[in-house]
Parts: sequence; C-alpha cells; structure tokens
Amino acid sequence: MSGDAARRQTPPTLPPTPDFDHYPVTETIAAVEPEGGGRVLALVWSDGRRSRYHAIWLRDNASNPEVMNLETREAWTDVTALPADPRIASTAVDSAGALEVRWAVEPFVSRYHPGWLRAHDYSNPRETRSEDPAEIAPVLWDAHLAEPSSFEGATILDDDAALESWLTAIATYGIARLRSVPCEPGMVTRVAERIGPVRPSNFGRVFDVRVKTGPGSNAYTDKALTPHTDLPTREYEPGLQFLHCLEASPMGGRAVMVDGYKAAAVIAARDPAAYKALTEIPWPMTNRAPDSDYRWEAPVICLDDKGAVKELRVAPFLRAPLNSTFDEVEEAYRALRVFFATAAEPDLQLVFDYRPGDLLGMDNRRLLHGREAYDSASGERWLQGCYGEREELHSRLRILARSRRAP
Amino acid sequence: MSGDAARRQTPPTLPPTPDFDHYPVTETIAAVEPEGGGRVLALVWSDGRRSRYHAIWLRDNASNPEVMNLETREAWTDVTALPADPRIASTAVDSAGALEVRWAVEPFVSRYHPGWLRAHDYSNPRETRSEDPAEIAPVLWDAHLAEPSSFEGATILDDDAALESWLTAIATYGIARLRSVPCEPGMVTRVAERIGPVRPSNFGRVFDVRVKTGPGSNAYTDKALTPHTDLPTREYEPGLQFLHCLEASPMGGRAVMVDGYKAAAVIAARDPAAYKALTEIPWPMTNRAPDSDYRWEAPVICLDDKGAVKELRVAPFLRAPLNSTFDEVEEAYRALRVFFATAAEPDLQLVFDYRPGDLLGMDNRRLLHGREAYDSASGERWLQGCYGEREELHSRLRILARSRRAP
Repeated sequence: MSGDAARRQTPPTLPPTPDFDHYPVTETIAAVEPEGGGRVLALVWSDGRRSRYHAIWLRDNASNPEVMNLETREAWTDVTALPADPRIASTAVDSAGALEVRWAVEPFVSRYHPGWLRAHDYSNPRETRSEDPAEIAPVLWDAHLAEPSSFEGATILDDDAALESWLTAIATYGIARLRSVPCEPGMVTRVAERIGPVRPSNFGRVFDVRVKTGPGSNAYTDKALTPHTDLPTREYEPGLQFLHCLEASPMGGRAVMVDGYKAAAVIAARDPAAYKALTEIPWPMTNRAPDSDYRWEAPVICLDDKGAVKELRVAPFLRAPLNSTFDEVEEAYRALRVFFATAAEPDLQLVFDYRPGDLLGMDNRRLLHGREAYDSASGERWLQGCYGEREELHSRLRILARSRRAP
Repeated sequence: MSGDAARRQTPPTLPPTPDFDHYPVTETIAAVEPEGGGRVLALVWSDGRRSRYHAIWLRDNASNPEVMNLETREAWTDVTALPADPRIASTAVDSAGALEVRWAVEPFVSRYHPGWLRAHDYSNPRETRSEDPAEIAPVLWDAHLAEPSSFEGATILDDDAALESWLTAIATYGIARLRSVPCEPGMVTRVAERIGPVRPSNFGRVFDVRVKTGPGSNAYTDKALTPHTDLPTREYEPGLQFLHCLEASPMGGRAVMVDGYKAAAVIAARDPAAYKALTEIPWPMTNRAPDSDYRWEAPVICLDDKGAVKELRVAPFLRAPLNSTFDEVEEAYRALRVFFATAAEPDLQLVFDYRPGDLLGMDNRRLLHGREAYDSASGERWLQGCYGEREELHSRLRILARSRRAP
C-alpha cells in the first residue's frame, strides 16, 4: 500500500490534539483497562505495550471546547477548575481509533488522539516517548576537523531543507558555516531571523567587528583575541552568535575556534583537580563601560544536574576581580591557566580564513571563538554579528520537523 | 570642611582603576606587610582593618598600560600571559596614597587605587566589600498593599532621580507604576529603553494586549487570566515586563496581581509537602503555535543554591502535559492546585483598575500578573507591552548610583 493510499484511509474524524503538532498513528489501541476505581486507565497497544494514564492527567489534557480554547490550544482556566479527584465512568475506542472517556460527574465526553496518547506515555521509560527533534547529540571535535561544515548560503533564506541542514550542523558541532551569503550589511540579521528573534545587547542589535576609534571592547581593535564566549557577563549568555564577513583583511585575522565541550573533556581527563575548580569556583565577569555595568559570577565550565557540561562562560578581557574565598585564589588561577593553555593547544584548534560572504553560526555557550591579530594598515576587516538563543534554534528545528511530518 | 574643599584636597594622581567606577577613599593605607616570600601582601588600614591580597591577584588586576587596554579597561591577554608564580619584590605607599608594587621579575611598577583595593577586599567577609547598588532586598506584600507604588511618568524620560526611584520600587516590590505616561503607541519601549535593550519574542518586540481575531494567545481575548508569569516556556524567562495602558475598558478587566515570593512563603509555611513538590517536580511549559514550538521544564518555584526563591515559572494556559515519573503525578497536581488556590486568595491579591497612561514595570520572574474578564462589547481595552531583563535593571541601578558617586 502506498503512502498516499494509507493517508486516504486514515479515518477523518480523529479529535484535535492539545497542540499543533502531527502524530502519526503507528499503533492502535487494542484494549482499555480501568484501574483503581476509575483513577487510572491502562491502554494495551497493538504491539503489546501497556501505557497507564491518571484520570487527572487525562482530564487536564482534554481538548474539549469546554476546557480548551481550540483556536490557541490553550486551557481556558487553571487547575483549580478541574475536579480534585476526577473519575472515569466508562471508556470506548471509537471508529476513528480515538479513546473516548466518559467522566463520572461532568457531562461531557473527552476524546483523545491515539498518536498523541502514545507520544505522551509517561508510564514507560523516557525513550519510549516521542523524540524531540531539537535534541541533537553534540559531536566533539578537535583540530582533525579541518574546516567547519559548510553550506550554500544563497538558498538559506527560502529553502527549509537547506536551513535544517545548517541548523542541525550548528547543534551537532557548535559551529557551521554558510558560504556566499550576499555581502550586504544587515544580511546577518535576515539570516538569523530565519531561526527566530535577534537578541539585542548594549552593543546593539547588530554589532560591527572592525577597528574603531574609542573602542568599547578589545574586539574592536586589530589585536588577537583569545578564544572566548561572548557576554558571559550576563545571567543568560547568548546561545547563538552569527558572524558575517563583509570584508576580509589580507594580512592575518584568521578565525581561531575551539570546541569548549572538547576542551572541558580533555581537562577532566588530564587534571581532575583543575576540572573541579573550573566547575565549582565562580569567576566574576563584567562588561566595563561608562554607561553599563553588567556582572555575573559563574564557574567557567557549568554542569547540568547530571554532571554533563551545559555551557562555558569565559572571556579573558571580561574577567572581573576574583571574589572567592581567600584559600581558593591560587587554585582558581592555576585552573584558569590550565583552561586557557588547553584551549591554546594547536591540536584542539580549528583555524581558518574568513572569505567575504562567509557567515558563521555558532553555539556561543559551547564554542570558544577567537582570532589572530591582523594588520589594520594592510586593509579593512569587517564582520557583522548578532546574537540569538538556543531555544530559538530548538523551536525552529521542531517546526521544520513538524512540516516534514505534516499529513 | 565642605565637600568641595575635600575634593580639591584629593591627591590628583591616584592611578586608574580596572573599571569605570568611582571609589571614595574613606580609609588610607597605614602599613604594608609582605607575607609568604612575596606571594601575599597584607594591608593595614587607618581604621585597623587588615586586608590580604595574593600576588597573582594583584598582578592580574594591575591597570598598567602594559597589561590593560586603558581605553576599554580590558586586559590585553589571558591569564597564560601572567607569570605562573609572581612575587612581590618591594612595596610603597606613594604621596597620592596609592599602593606601589615592584615585581620580582617583570620590569614595571603597578599602582593600585586604595579605594578600589578596599572595595575588593576578598580576605574579609563579603559584607565588608563594597555594596552592589543592584542588590535590593525584596519586601514581600499581600492585599494590605492597596496600590502599587506610583510615580509621575512624565519625568521618567529625562530625570535620572525619578528613574532611580521607580526602578528601586520595581526591585523592592516586583511591581511599580508610572502615571500619566503619554498615551502614544511605542511609549512603552521608550520607557523600557531607559533601562536597557528590549527583549523581543515570537510575539514581537512590542505586543498589543487587546481582543484579536485569530488570537495567538488567550491574552488576546476578553476572558479572565489567572495570575501567571510570561514565557515560562523559555529557558530564561524574561526578567521584566512593562504594560502601558492606552485605552481602558469601562467594564471589567481590572489588574489582579500577586507577589509570587509571598505566595511561595505562604505555601512553605502551610503545606511543606506541596512546597516540596512545587520546588522539585518540573512542569513542562510550551507555547502552542503553528510556527513556533518552545518548551521548557522547570519547577513552578525555583530555588537558588541557598534555598531562597529565585523565580516563579507558571502560566496555566502554557502548561504542557506533565512528563514526570508515574508516581509523582497525583502529588504534582495536588501541589499545583494548592499553588493556584493560594494565589487566588483575596488576602494575597492586589486588584486595581488601569487608567489610560498607566505604565506598570514588573519583575516577571517574581510577580504573578492576571486580569479579570471584561466585556469587549462595552468598549476597547488596549495595553501595549514589552519585555526586558533583570540584569538590565541591575546595570542601570549601578550606573545611576555611579553617577551619584562621581567626583
């Protein structure tokens, strides 16, 4: 049976889901077994899996017009409007394959889409639930990666498949490049907005990385920049950074990039004491400026509650005076030296030239980006940059996947 | 001696500090005592306090032009360029009152501003260091607060003292109002930008809260909204929200506000089990929309590492299906019901009318904001809103304090 034929046979009357996503019906409901006096419902699927749902959970996620604004797919009221202890009076599977629930007290019938129910099965281990298209495992890299993954930039503005390829590479490697993006000021935000809103900062919505008189940052000189993350001075460091090369200097200024996750792994293996200090002792960071004063303290390597590296937060030129306890000071400096010495190892660095038209997409909470010094007398070097967020990348990846799944 | 006379007597030759702030010299350096073979320096101040600094810390924070770009006040290089184990060869206090340090190997002399040194004394308890003007203790409130603190809105755009009063009230209470802000679309961002950049979202840089056809959110209907925080669907919930009333409905639509910190404290005292569930079990939140799919899971009440409430994250119409372990489900729902029932108690609510020209500044990570239903047939109700961040508020409070301290 072809895909088209299968779609024609899909019953047309499955109920709306509580969201705007698409849920293929891969298994059907073979049996329904109430438990605990109507407080729990067990479904047995056509492949034998057993999924259990609480009555309160089903009632909360009903998509009846009585409880949900179907236009916004948002509940009309809060949880205090639910019965405290809803009970299921009876159930059925209707001709469309939907689960029908009759409530013990309330007069309406709730119907549930079987694909949606299966995707939200919280009674089995997490891996049995539907995959999040935004959850892409990072692949760590070192100098063996000779060039960042590169994609044709001309197509990105209107080709969703090209966009998805580029975004998937950013999520995987923390850096991916577009080639031949038109060399027009402002293109960097047009590309970034294919993902989501641009995040402004005190440096503006777009910033120009070039030599300036009265620079507000060392970035606006022709000196080398040690690989770093941008704006670790904020509670929420920007998740994405985009840099678009409008003019490339003939002499120097090559990009120097390090996978921060890889550097962290190397340090963890080689010098556990330094790793401990880097993950535990907060370093204050600050933006020094006449008209702003941002400060945030966090370890250089931040772990999530499972001990995995969540983000890096460090820029040499943004460090504020260490404000730890007296006895931690010398170990904090030793560990920071280990960190920068490791990131400076050629074996970990990806070094490459910018060409006009190159546009880099980077995970600013993972990638350490820097540059070699250049000779500003030998020619102009001009990058335009802007920031975005990881969650915009994740939202976009989900929407691109949703479009592919659309019936 | 008058203030002016004191300023004229201040030695004119104190060295630059590693930042752009001002450090009054309240105490002078009475004695300098090297320790540990030049690895540590102890200062004895004119009031008897003893402050100790490591040589590596002093070397790192030197403001010599050899190590710091004095234009940006940023270090030229990273910590690997420092001597691994710098030693102090000799010290002096010069005629300006600055500490002079000669290094054992490097040829330059570093000079330190005594006010800056005292403000950064990390060898004594934290409370002896300089105060952060952005650290304002929250004052919890309930229905006894009959009106939010209110300020004259006309002056806010060019009067720094008026701005500081309003911002201090936002930091203290989580809500403060401006009156008589001109009823022009876009004023809300002009006011917000007195603090810092506006944070855009999928709802735009500015959003209009009014009845819309094809609403993207329940907020854009005339229905009641349970008090909630905005965008708990993001990893980083916006720290500030501004709402400017351009037109007020004659029938209903009153603001219903709750101090989320107070509600959390009430629940902690009354129902520790519910508090535990609310601070530990993550609730998924999602923005349901055809073209975006934001998701984030976090407890409704988020604590910092000292157990204090850091933020609240909850909106009834943005809850996604609970995705916890099976055995947590009923307790999670019970606790959420306790949360909303508590927030619905009149004793905790601040209820007031919007007048055209009112502009509310709110800490969106603390305040639960909602509204009563209104009758959209009886007249137009139009609020314009935008988001900002706590860290922009903090930066602005520091700069306003810095201006007051300027010599």
